[in-house]
Amino acid sequence: MQAEIEVRNAIESALGHKPLTCLIKNVELLNVFTGEQYPVEIGIYRNRIVNVASKSEQLSAEQIIDGSGKIAIPGLIDTHLHIESTMLTPANFAAAVLPHGTTTVCADPHEIANVLGKAGVKMMLENAKQLPMKVYLFAPTCVPECNAVTAGAEITDRDIREMLDWNGIVGLGEVMDFNGVISSNEKMMKILAVGRSKNAVIDGHCVFLSGKELNAYIAAGPEADHENFTAKSAIEKLRSGMYLKLRGPHVLQTREMIEELTKLPTPWNIIFVTDDVMPDILKKCGHLDYVCRTFIENGMDPVEVVRSVTLRPAEHMRFHDLGAIAPGKIADVVLLKSLEKFEVDTVISDGKLVVKNSKLIVPITRTRFDTKAQDTVVLKKLVMEDFEVKSPIKNGKLKLNVVDFASPKEQDAQSFLQLVLTNLTQTEVDVRNGKLELGRIALVTVFERHGKSGGKGIGFVRNLIQHGAVASTVAHDAHNLIVVGTEPRDMYEAAKHVVETHGGITAVKDGRLLASIELPIAGLMSNENLELVSKKMLILRNAFKEMQMLDHPYMPLICLLTLSVVPHVRITDKGIFDVDNQSFVNWQAS
Amino acid sequence: MQAEIEVRNAIESALGHKPLTCLIKNVELLNVFTGEQYPVEIGIYRNRIVNVASKSEQLSAEQIIDGSGKIAIPGLIDTHLHIESTMLTPANFAAAVLPHGTTTVCADPHEIANVLGKAGVKMMLENAKQLPMKVYLFAPTCVPECNAVTAGAEITDRDIREMLDWNGIVGLGEVMDFNGVISSNEKMMKILAVGRSKNAVIDGHCVFLSGKELNAYIAAGPEADHENFTAKSAIEKLRSGMYLKLRGPHVLQTREMIEELTKLPTPWNIIFVTDDVMPDILKKCGHLDYVCRTFIENGMDPVEVVRSVTLRPAEHMRFHDLGAIAPGKIADVVLLKSLEKFEVDTVISDGKLVVKNSKLIVPITRTRFDTKAQDTVVLKKLVMEDFEVKSPIKNGKLKLNVVDFASPKEQDAQSFLQLVLTNLTQTEVDVRNGKLELGRIALVTVFERHGKSGGKGIGFVRNLIQHGAVASTVAHDAHNLIVVGTEPRDMYEAAKHVVETHGGITAVKDGRLLASIELPIAGLMSNENLELVSKKMLILRNAFKEMQMLDHPYMPLICLLTLSVVPHVRITDKGIFDVDNQSFVNWQAS
Repeated sequence: MQAEIEVRNAIESALGHKPLTCLIKNVELLNVFTGEQYPVEIGIYRNRIVNVASKSEQLSAEQIIDGSGKIAIPGLIDTHLHIESTMLTPANFAAAVLPHGTTTVCADPHEIANVLGKAGVKMMLENAKQLPMKVYLFAPTCVPECNAVTAGAEITDRDIREMLDWNGIVGLGEVMDFNGVISSNEKMMKILAVGRSKNAVIDGHCVFLSGKELNAYIAAGPEADHENFTAKSAIEKLRSGMYLKLRGPHVLQTREMIEELTKLPTPWNIIFVTDDVMPDILKKCGHLDYVCRTFIENGMDPVEVVRSVTLRPAEHMRFHDLGAIAPGKIADVVLLKSLEKFEVDTVISDGKLVVKNSKLIVPITRTRFDTKAQDTVVLKKLVMEDFEVKSPIKNGKLKLNVVDFASPKEQDAQSFLQLVLTNLTQTEVDVRNGKLELGRIALVTVFERHGKSGGKGIGFVRNLIQHGAVASTVAHDAHNLIVVGTEPRDMYEAAKHVVETHGGITAVKDGRLLASIELPIAGLMSNENLELVSKKMLILRNAFKEMQMLDHPYMPLICLLTLSVVPHVRITDKGIFDVDNQSFVNWQAS
Repeated sequence: MQAEIEVRNAIESALGHKPLTCLIKNVELLNVFTGEQYPVEIGIYRNRIVNVASKSEQLSAEQIIDGSGKIAIPGLIDTHLHIESTMLTPANFAAAVLPHGTTTVCADPHEIANVLGKAGVKMMLENAKQLPMKVYLFAPTCVPECNAVTAGAEITDRDIREMLDWNGIVGLGEVMDFNGVISSNEKMMKILAVGRSKNAVIDGHCVFLSGKELNAYIAAGPEADHENFTAKSAIEKLRSGMYLKLRGPHVLQTREMIEELTKLPTPWNIIFVTDDVMPDILKKCGHLDYVCRTFIENGMDPVEVVRSVTLRPAEHMRFHDLGAIAPGKIADVVLLKSLEKFEVDTVISDGKLVVKNSKLIVPITRTRFDTKAQDTVVLKKLVMEDFEVKSPIKNGKLKLNVVDFASPKEQDAQSFLQLVLTNLTQTEVDVRNGKLELGRIALVTVFERHGKSGGKGIGFVRNLIQHGAVASTVAHDAHNLIVVGTEPRDMYEAAKHVVETHGGITAVKDGRLLASIELPIAGLMSNENLELVSKKMLILRNAFKEMQMLDHPYMPLICLLTLSVVPHVRITDKGIFDVDNQSFVNWQAS
């Protein structure tokens, strides 16, 4: 019955027998189907577009929006992102990104899933209800990321089968364990089999794969990849039928990528995504609109840019009624002040005017986040001694295994990849009175914080921090409590503060708290809005500078030091992990 | 479990840990994703492509196919056709079109549905099982085409709901009753609501619709249209987000269409289809390959041509694993001897080599067609008097309502539209001794032949036939028995022969049977193969010439004289139907 009423309403309003609920007049349409631009009127009835007329049809409407001087494009669709990285709840996230034109997201909630399992995924869905934005979630596939960590929960193939039946779950999240896939690891086989048997969209993640291995990975199911650093690898994936998801300029040499891609006769499957965006960057640069702007500035055809955030992500996600301004489609419309500068002025989401003059004009229902998520930092009481290393000798020389970060250079995309790929080196240090003379080397402690093993991993790191300490419960992907520092007292104070505030990131130098961002929801997200969170993040970044802490706009490097799937060496709650050899090494070198 | 085994097999064979079942070597790939052409090896495991390598990966395989000098493109997909128009059963059809590279069809079985209802649809599915070709069917939406005819069956919204759950049904067939849609006709509303609520692909048919009406039609659900005669209308549909389905040169001014379409910056949603192809044309010209060849000859970019029969129809039909040569896709591969001439040499369907040197090399399982379909021409015994018109006066002048066909001109696409659109005129004829002196006017009788009303419609037609008579149970869409002729005896003989053979088309002149094609399956299809059926069709065409019968390569016009949805006037089993005014008129003009 509902469907029949909808059909009748669509027909009657399109014909003008029933007033439209909204009519956008005098606007220039960028037609994603033909690549043309021409003046139209866009007629909307409730949540659907019903009439796109190139000349006035003299239709009446309850609400008229004047689109003079503006260009209409479909609402933007982000198909690869982690809301948790913005440190905002889905509700605050929606309030933050709607003014940037994003009307649909397909987020992978694997950060919260590492803390709270599928219950965390459900909490995200609950929080996203009643928003004037479509928030879909992928079922996370790689929780925990591997056995080298203790996560708060595990997601099994059975969990994924269950989640795929939940309303709002739209596919399998990035299959990060590409080594597990190509080695036919049992867990990955079962998970991919679930995706395949349910004909689900399967998102991928396969940096460095090529040739036979890449073919095997794609043949197994994943149909998209966002881990693109070089044009050569990107083109290999495009040729292989993958959706090529390109991220913003913080992790991409945009111009070089465009130059190589546009040498292809007619590349099609290019999609833009945001992946991880920190709150300060979201505030300063924007969201998908920022990615679009960058690609246009670097020479990409604006029509192709628009398709990469509308029509194509809709195709990829099998959203047959999204991604275009045409009769029958969901009424998600963005009016740009300028296509070249990609400035969002007005946003209509599900047929409702939600953003005007670049400002959100509707209230956002901020459902209180599930209380079970607000007390997730569970570990034994910390003491100062937790941050002191017991030397096996009282005086003399000791050889340490040290995780080396590259020296920070100009922070471009290339440098991000260089920074992330750590190395293991051996360094001899002096021991005096049982105390290690670490110099420019900092101590790293990772505490299991999910109330599971109670374990603690220890390691050393070079070039990450020079003075003071930072503690964080944002520590990918298991999100244990990482504490890095040069002074035991600073480390203790920083960690204590984070534990007391139920999670977050805290910087302490010379016993003084320099900055702190409280993230009480799963130790990952704030209850506050972008305005406040981004301010705190900026203060934190300044503290990082003061401490000579290695930072990057895309993400502070400390948050990735724990990620046991990124080469070449990581530190987890279980110790120093050699990713290449898949084995642990002692902090004391032999 | 099956899915897991498939994932493992794909990975292991892609990596070379398990021999491929088939490897195509030394072939040039036309990559539909990038538009490039380059040499590759295509590795297949069972029915899937698992490895496409641009250099030799030294993989071993059970079967090696040498692709030297050939170009590999994906198997062709036809998303709008009526198998019945070829007069072949699905099995014989598959044998006929596989050598032309068609590996997947989505056919609308509305011809047989008009005779046998949903049972007929099921019979088509049954006959198509076990074929080395994917034969999917749409659920017919407009059976009967309207109330002006008596069909053998009706398809209701409930039938459609049921059929959508059958294995092999992929959507709603062409929604031809576009007037019913835009006037919110109850039956069409219910049918569209079923399609929408089941998120089904809905194929359209909306010749002449434009502006508000076109918007309303699309907003109601149909997402594709194949009734494109002018570039202006085609572009309006493209802009509105429809898949633009273009048919072959018999009903399209190919060059003019391409010239206009290529003026658009980047038109995307173009798809080629065959719709109705008569057996002699299929034999002489080919199938989708013929459409492709024509578009290439007329200047369309061959890469776009290939996309229009592979990647895009797959997108339209939501076949996520068809339409491309890439890891994970179903192994449907066509090797062309020449891209420009579009000559098919080799066809691999579902991973099996089925066509070599342009010849079918596998046996086709020809399941006997359901016997219930073999006795569908059910009407009272015909007598000579059935073909004589009783004049209300014995001598004098009588004014007749006559259906006028345009005089046959050069048979190009434009002329087909002109020919199809009949007009109603009044003509005075002499009556002598109760007998009408018809001159160049022929008598038309349409007998309800489904064992229903037993009704008979009478009318007159100009320019259709000059000597003799033709009887046919192929008479769109209700497929009643139409008999047209200049002599009662010829008409009687022709009709008698068709009834005795359980359906078909028969031509009789001066009491002599000139030609006949027996179509005992639903009065629409032969049990014979293309070789035999096309020969008979050629003989029939020659007979038409001898009789000065109006004919067209796309379809003899007699088969469309009954189609009560085509303007401006038709003759059905209920009489002469004025399509524009939706009313019947008497054969005797007032």
